[in-house]
Amino acid sequence: MTARTLQGFMELLPQEQIVFNHMKDVIAHTYELFGFAPLDTPVLELAEVLLSKSGGETEKQIYAFKKGDTDLAMRFDLTVPLAKYIALYNNELTFPFKRYQIGKVYRGERPQKGRFREFYQCDIDIIDRDELNIVYDAEVLAVIYTVFSKLELPAFKIYINNRKLLSGFLEYLGIADKTVDVLRLVDKIKKIPEEAFLAELADLGLADKARDGLLEFIKINGTNEQIIAKLEDFNIGDGLFAEGLEELKTVVAQAQNLGLPAANIQIDLSITRGLDYYTGTVYETFFDEYPQFGSVCSGGRYDNLSSVFTDKKFPGVGISIGLTRLFDQLRANNLLPIKTLTPNKALIITQDAAFTEAAVALASKLRAQNIAVDVMYRQCKFKKKMEYANKIGVPYLVIIGEEEAKTKLYSLKDMASGEQKSLDAAALADVLLG
Amino acid sequence: MTARTLQGFMELLPQEQIVFNHMKDVIAHTYELFGFAPLDTPVLELAEVLLSKSGGETEKQIYAFKKGDTDLAMRFDLTVPLAKYIALYNNELTFPFKRYQIGKVYRGERPQKGRFREFYQCDIDIIDRDELNIVYDAEVLAVIYTVFSKLELPAFKIYINNRKLLSGFLEYLGIADKTVDVLRLVDKIKKIPEEAFLAELADLGLADKARDGLLEFIKINGTNEQIIAKLEDFNIGDGLFAEGLEELKTVVAQAQNLGLPAANIQIDLSITRGLDYYTGTVYETFFDEYPQFGSVCSGGRYDNLSSVFTDKKFPGVGISIGLTRLFDQLRANNLLPIKTLTPNKALIITQDAAFTEAAVALASKLRAQNIAVDVMYRQCKFKKKMEYANKIGVPYLVIIGEEEAKTKLYSLKDMASGEQKSLDAAALADVLLG
Repeated sequence: MTARTLQGFMELLPQEQIVFNHMKDVIAHTYELFGFAPLDTPVLELAEVLLSKSGGETEKQIYAFKKGDTDLAMRFDLTVPLAKYIALYNNELTFPFKRYQIGKVYRGERPQKGRFREFYQCDIDIIDRDELNIVYDAEVLAVIYTVFSKLELPAFKIYINNRKLLSGFLEYLGIADKTVDVLRLVDKIKKIPEEAFLAELADLGLADKARDGLLEFIKINGTNEQIIAKLEDFNIGDGLFAEGLEELKTVVAQAQNLGLPAANIQIDLSITRGLDYYTGTVYETFFDEYPQFGSVCSGGRYDNLSSVFTDKKFPGVGISIGLTRLFDQLRANNLLPIKTLTPNKALIITQDAAFTEAAVALASKLRAQNIAVDVMYRQCKFKKKMEYANKIGVPYLVIIGEEEAKTKLYSLKDMASGEQKSLDAAALADVLLG
Repeated sequence: MTARTLQGFMELLPQEQIVFNHMKDVIAHTYELFGFAPLDTPVLELAEVLLSKSGGETEKQIYAFKKGDTDLAMRFDLTVPLAKYIALYNNELTFPFKRYQIGKVYRGERPQKGRFREFYQCDIDIIDRDELNIVYDAEVLAVIYTVFSKLELPAFKIYINNRKLLSGFLEYLGIADKTVDVLRLVDKIKKIPEEAFLAELADLGLADKARDGLLEFIKINGTNEQIIAKLEDFNIGDGLFAEGLEELKTVVAQAQNLGLPAANIQIDLSITRGLDYYTGTVYETFFDEYPQFGSVCSGGRYDNLSSVFTDKKFPGVGISIGLTRLFDQLRANNLLPIKTLTPNKALIITQDAAFTEAAVALASKLRAQNIAVDVMYRQCKFKKKMEYANKIGVPYLVIIGEEEAKTKLYSLKDMASGEQKSLDAAALADVLLG
């Protein structure tokens, strides 16, 4: 039998897994810092529940199968399970409900570079009954900013927009009936040449004037203040446009109030997110020097999360980080925040088996002080033990031989500097804790 | 469309999920303290890989299906994926290899009380090439002891044995050919009446003398020292028995050396673990007052992990905690270590929307000091806001009104004592950090 792992499923070596888990922990910890409670829903759901809202593309990619008489499917995102969860448990939840969920999702895509069939999504959502205060849209910005700052990754910018602006502008142009198609097309503008974009607008039946007006609109640029001033100059007497502008102004103002650097937040009127699902603020996040990564954190506001399952109205705002893909891209570009190759602060080795007892006792003492240490019990040539210590990349080595076992002064070697000291257990713990 | 979750799949409310995650974090952190590196393998594997080693029971329970031309299956434990991983990557790993894995596994059992179709396993294994030092068997004991001590659960005892003892004893009785069946039967002794046990031994063809001898053997009791003394008195000139006794003595001695309390470690010669897979030390863990929970942490030593996939020999020792079932049992018996109902240290509420800016700024300041806080931006009657604070169970409430916004002295209310103080941002942070 040949050992094999399925294509499109990430499987890491321990030193990579440590970095991956570090990133996952930073994200989870930041989400908790902003008051999000953890949630964990099943990977398997009834197929009809998962497919309740989806279109053809999802249905093709989903892992679905029958077990007994039941049609099952593996979740392809964390949003549909959340919609189900809210519909099921809303009477027991307290609103506004802030939850985060970090878990694996499944899409049976054609495997290709940078695409995974099993990948982690790291989601937050804030859900309320009937209405959700707009300040939460700014708080989501603060979460994105804090996560990417704490991850110590390359310089990034969060691009924001409000779908009501463009929708209102299309109303003003008299082509409100084409809103869904136009917004979906605008979402592609950075990926296709301008001529192709204009040609596709023409295909949608937009007159020259409308096309030019639209192009001019989404190209409005400058600082956030300049863009807002230009939008105010538009002076469109339209409710939707005015609403979107008011919301965007609030989000930008509260972002400032939250202390987010202006350099990291940029209004971009061409950001729409393809999904019809979003109804207000939308977010995308790009690394300044690595636009080819695409958006590494996206999301937005929606009017009604659980409409498929219930008549009650649950508006929300949320984002998602596709951690598996992000990790893969960072690794391919040597951008991983490498902290350590092992969870251990120190490795204890002995001159020979006679000192096992001393090694065990010292390890026990250090672990009681919350210091992660490993002991090598395997006996082999001393040179081999040193090779092992070098290979696992442990920061400190403790060596126990005749002298050390007798005096209880242990040799501590700093593997980076090569420096060696003789210390008692307490002093040794201090160095490892420091 | 009705929102539904599949039977046999645990889905928790946020306050329960926080406790569940706390337990999962304690386990992960303890595993790391003992030098285990994290591992994460796919939930989906090739069906032939997962079924390479299994018997009929597994095959019936496994979630298997076809996608395109490929036969896929969801993992039913974390051991087979580890065997595959070691076979695949052993040239890139450093041995001894210590890994932990915490993840969901899937078994399509008939749903019944206390049985889950999706559940977390929390595994550690130490794997070496060709030979693995016996001291690691004691270290595994220390891990179990430390995990259950840190979880702050009811009093527990870890029962240990060495399968070589019973196997050697059966050789001595001249019935070595029945070892597999007898050990599997002994594993059931606590679950069936003694007469039934003896009858089943008779069915296996054991003579009266052998049956009595066996029963006497597995009933040997006393302190660990007394049991070891009795085993030494047996004076069986058999290699396997002597080997098992030597190993058991080393494990008990090193456990003492590791500082593990004698009260928590008990030799029990009737512990065999059903699986043929184990070849030496075996572990089971029971709560003293809740034997009906069954073993909450089990495992043992095995000779050859990846034999299905490779000719290289990888002996190891490992344990597994079935966290989902454990959590469910603790919850049903009101034994959960409840820490908090929310990740937040404080909730900030405002008198009205005019103070949103002050609330946002204060939240930002506190989060920068790593204090998890939530802000309620929804405006409603003050009484409603207080009700919300009570319901989410947050330890502290910060109230911002006219006075507070002007003086920057915030009202901090201790929700448990009802005590209220007026503090500036720095003093407030001190209280929340303390």
